[in-house]
Amino acid sequence: MSDRLKSPTQQVSEWLSRLDAALHRNDWQAAADLFCDECYWRDLVSFTWNIKTLEGKNEIQAMLAATVPAAQPAHWQVEGDATEQDGVTEGWFTFETAVSRGQGYLRLKSGKCWTLLTTMTELKGFEEKRGVTRSLGAQHGVDKNRSTWLEQRLQEVAELGYSKQPYCVIIGGGQGGIGLAARLKRLDVPTIVLEKNPRAGDSWRNRYKSLCLHDPVWYDHMPYLPFPDHWPVFSPKDKIGDWLEMYTKVMELNYWHSTECQSAQYHAETQDWTVTVNREGQTVVLRPKQLVFATGMSGMPNNPRFPGTEAFRGTLQHSSQFRGTDNYSGKRCVVLGSNNSAHDICAALWEQEADVTMIQRSSTHVVRSDSAMKLALGGLYSESAVQAGITTDMADLLFASIPYGIMPDFHRPIYREIAKRDANLYRRLQQAGFLLDFGDDGSGLFMKYLRRGSGYYIDVGAADLIADGKIKLHSGVNIEQITQNSVVLTDGTVLPADLIVLATGYGSMNGWAARLISQEVADRVGKCWGLGSDTTKDPGPWEGELRNMWKPTQQPALWFHGGNLHQSRHYSLYLALQIKARQVGLATSVYGIGEVHHRA
Amino acid sequence: MSDRLKSPTQQVSEWLSRLDAALHRNDWQAAADLFCDECYWRDLVSFTWNIKTLEGKNEIQAMLAATVPAAQPAHWQVEGDATEQDGVTEGWFTFETAVSRGQGYLRLKSGKCWTLLTTMTELKGFEEKRGVTRSLGAQHGVDKNRSTWLEQRLQEVAELGYSKQPYCVIIGGGQGGIGLAARLKRLDVPTIVLEKNPRAGDSWRNRYKSLCLHDPVWYDHMPYLPFPDHWPVFSPKDKIGDWLEMYTKVMELNYWHSTECQSAQYHAETQDWTVTVNREGQTVVLRPKQLVFATGMSGMPNNPRFPGTEAFRGTLQHSSQFRGTDNYSGKRCVVLGSNNSAHDICAALWEQEADVTMIQRSSTHVVRSDSAMKLALGGLYSESAVQAGITTDMADLLFASIPYGIMPDFHRPIYREIAKRDANLYRRLQQAGFLLDFGDDGSGLFMKYLRRGSGYYIDVGAADLIADGKIKLHSGVNIEQITQNSVVLTDGTVLPADLIVLATGYGSMNGWAARLISQEVADRVGKCWGLGSDTTKDPGPWEGELRNMWKPTQQPALWFHGGNLHQSRHYSLYLALQIKARQVGLATSVYGIGEVHHRA
Repeated sequence: MSDRLKSPTQQVSEWLSRLDAALHRNDWQAAADLFCDECYWRDLVSFTWNIKTLEGKNEIQAMLAATVPAAQPAHWQVEGDATEQDGVTEGWFTFETAVSRGQGYLRLKSGKCWTLLTTMTELKGFEEKRGVTRSLGAQHGVDKNRSTWLEQRLQEVAELGYSKQPYCVIIGGGQGGIGLAARLKRLDVPTIVLEKNPRAGDSWRNRYKSLCLHDPVWYDHMPYLPFPDHWPVFSPKDKIGDWLEMYTKVMELNYWHSTECQSAQYHAETQDWTVTVNREGQTVVLRPKQLVFATGMSGMPNNPRFPGTEAFRGTLQHSSQFRGTDNYSGKRCVVLGSNNSAHDICAALWEQEADVTMIQRSSTHVVRSDSAMKLALGGLYSESAVQAGITTDMADLLFASIPYGIMPDFHRPIYREIAKRDANLYRRLQQAGFLLDFGDDGSGLFMKYLRRGSGYYIDVGAADLIADGKIKLHSGVNIEQITQNSVVLTDGTVLPADLIVLATGYGSMNGWAARLISQEVADRVGKCWGLGSDTTKDPGPWEGELRNMWKPTQQPALWFHGGNLHQSRHYSLYLALQIKARQVGLATSVYGIGEVHHRA
Repeated sequence: MSDRLKSPTQQVSEWLSRLDAALHRNDWQAAADLFCDECYWRDLVSFTWNIKTLEGKNEIQAMLAATVPAAQPAHWQVEGDATEQDGVTEGWFTFETAVSRGQGYLRLKSGKCWTLLTTMTELKGFEEKRGVTRSLGAQHGVDKNRSTWLEQRLQEVAELGYSKQPYCVIIGGGQGGIGLAARLKRLDVPTIVLEKNPRAGDSWRNRYKSLCLHDPVWYDHMPYLPFPDHWPVFSPKDKIGDWLEMYTKVMELNYWHSTECQSAQYHAETQDWTVTVNREGQTVVLRPKQLVFATGMSGMPNNPRFPGTEAFRGTLQHSSQFRGTDNYSGKRCVVLGSNNSAHDICAALWEQEADVTMIQRSSTHVVRSDSAMKLALGGLYSESAVQAGITTDMADLLFASIPYGIMPDFHRPIYREIAKRDANLYRRLQQAGFLLDFGDDGSGLFMKYLRRGSGYYIDVGAADLIADGKIKLHSGVNIEQITQNSVVLTDGTVLPADLIVLATGYGSMNGWAARLISQEVADRVGKCWGLGSDTTKDPGPWEGELRNMWKPTQQPALWFHGGNLHQSRHYSLYLALQIKARQVGLATSVYGIGEVHHRA
């Protein structure tokens, strides 16, 4: 029977059988021949103990030869009904390896594989306890040595980090550190989260007061405990802060608030870390086996130094310090930068009757929030996706199933449509002198986020203010110097200023490694984030995955975790499984660990 | 086509059409003739603005004549697939009234209705905002008068109860008050919850330290925010306390902790209340339109007075005061009572190496926890129910669809099975002198709970201790008097005692009305809880529903809310809808308000 007559589900099922057979014969060539000439295998931990995309038959064949003998993949099973559209047959499947269970997604063209996603979902014998395997809670029967839940919990809190060492320490208690700690808790990995602020959620509360999440609620769920169905589309910062604080408590995380990490050293001989922290004024030395930086996908603030800064008599702040709670009415405010924070801060200042000028150094991608929600995210993360039965887990996997190498092809048509839809806004912005782009290759918001984590504004109102001249604009210039009471631009313009906000972004996450471990380790690990797309601010060579994120680095037992709420939720699973596997001593031979091409 | 040949769904659909037609013709007799001779219509607010079961055709016909002209029921639609088993055809349906939407459940025998449940799910025009209608959170665009979520929330907290009056005040901030407040919040009814303890959840935290919920997690979800899937089957008391505390915060309830209600008076002329409270030492006078007692399904502790009590040199406590945190090792402890708390406290004392004696005054129903979970609750509230697609909402409605009049018939076979399954335990208990029962009519645990809220122990270990003589037992006796250092029983036995725990239960909820409003109002309202089954401690006449719970009482604008977590979750919906309807001025003519037969 030709494939044309077979149902999509049959086609997927038969392809999986052929792959299974080839792998059982150790016939890597035959396995690779099941793929199209242009093909991608994205593996999240299952085969490679890495986060890795193999591109083309040769890379796939090499990966299989290196990993299959240990991974022992088997039990490939189509899951649900596959579909067919525009010549692409696609569907879900499950599989197992020697030590894990996995789920995947497959796209076929003319019977051969175009894209394959394989992901680890759980480790055999170390499954999370949930549903039927949840704990009883009560201890039935009688026991003269009974201790209650509260007694056990208080004992854990008292001992961990002192008489008992955590297996893992996470530096940074924002959504990333919290979500990862929740997963590690459910995997019984003793973990401490270090957070410098007094309360979980403060990293949100401390931002400028008008801030709301730029991503919608369907995209933002934490693991295990989704927001209730009345939760606002765009969480206000204090509300998401309160949710995170509640989450750390009900998930029983060992969350050390008011605690700052001072230094960390790795000991190669004992394969563990010394992490020195200041916990509410007390020095505590921790000795974890694994260390995770969850300090945000960004590193430390970029604080460019301009001549004359010391002389400035007004207020000069990095955007991360701006609160928006002072009264700026009538003040002359200059904001350097044109990304999300810069726009939000300009609008907040304008609403306070300040005199606001934005300095746009280079071109910026602007996309209206509702256009992005509807056209870019809506298929997977929206109320209609929920109603179509697309769970958050399914959405995350479908999202992950598009290899980064071809993701721009998926996004370009969306942004062409957005350019048409919002043509009027774009024309008005250009007329106001705003330098616009849609990314070097027209692939828009999410690719810019992945490549450089900057260069865009999700418009919630400031674009109109700029187009209307209410927020003044100087574009294609930078600050040349600062005087007692003004900013001098590179084109000679002098702007009187009471407030200067440097919305100049953040460095790479490995800046934190330089600060807390050593420059040598930071350099060994290299730049975090970015795909090597050889576009602006994302120099090549091509990596195929985000550098250093959620996967082994060149420094043993050091991990980087971060990203938006969606990424933190989804990739914390794979990071947690990698850490759990090491805790219980499974063989975790890493395939294709990234070479370092850039130090920062 | 005869009914035998029609699908169950067709049968349900056609029956609904016939009912609809009769009601449209105002032909109450024809409508009543669609019912079996033995028939029950349970209405939760939709028709009656009451919680009411009509039994028999005559009662149904009278109710229809009185309510249908205003209710204007229509759009009866079968929902999903009906089923047929053992001669009963049953299925879900939806319907509308003039002002509301509803859901119901129908059981047919030979084409006629045996049981009908109609429930209000939402008020038209006053639907909860959720899913697509949720708020945006962010306020897009620019607005010089913008206030943030935090500013608005802080303003609400500052104003409500002072410069703005709540529409509703709830006395008691346990799970009942909290769940109801959450529903009222989502219905935009300004509400304040008064809780005497410093933190939400303290009503659980303050109980004896070994306490875990006796009901399983699937039965215990709060509205809107279910427990995550790792939550223990039986929540330890401090853990459920923490969940409730978190819940009040993320649901943005106006929860006045450390606040005690001192008195309340109703003003007939202005149709509102004066509620005087002590909030952290400050007197605040509230003027709500509606007042809810959510002080627990029980009222104030029953503290029987025994001759000689003043002379006793040891510790004498009601069970509600017992913490179990002192050291009772070697102490002689006497526990009066044989319900849940009495057993739990006896076992906790025995585990501490105390010398423990239980005084059982009258016979008690004992059911092993796992037998009750498996045989009595498992069909609706269990992991297998979840896996069979029975959502919590569906389980609640199916549970509610069994009229109380025939509920014992559903339960007796279950308890016959349990008596067989656990025959050995029951025999051993009887051999130890324990007075056992399964309810007056063998209908077991839940009927006892509904009829009297007492008389049972869900065994988690203490029964073995009694059967083995490790907890000593005196049964069929009471305390006659207390001396300096002993308890004298009615049979003359003298028990030396260092600790006496009175596990003697609680009064009716209207005891709180007597204390806070007046004895006159308490008497006018009468006894709360109980069905009028004419069994032990539940005197007739038959009521058909729990007295005064979640429905209008003889005192305007006074409501009673309580029960276990399941009841609080489910019935808070109907109470919230009744309150919302009054807030927005809908006509809410109450049909069949309960007569008062018992004062307490």
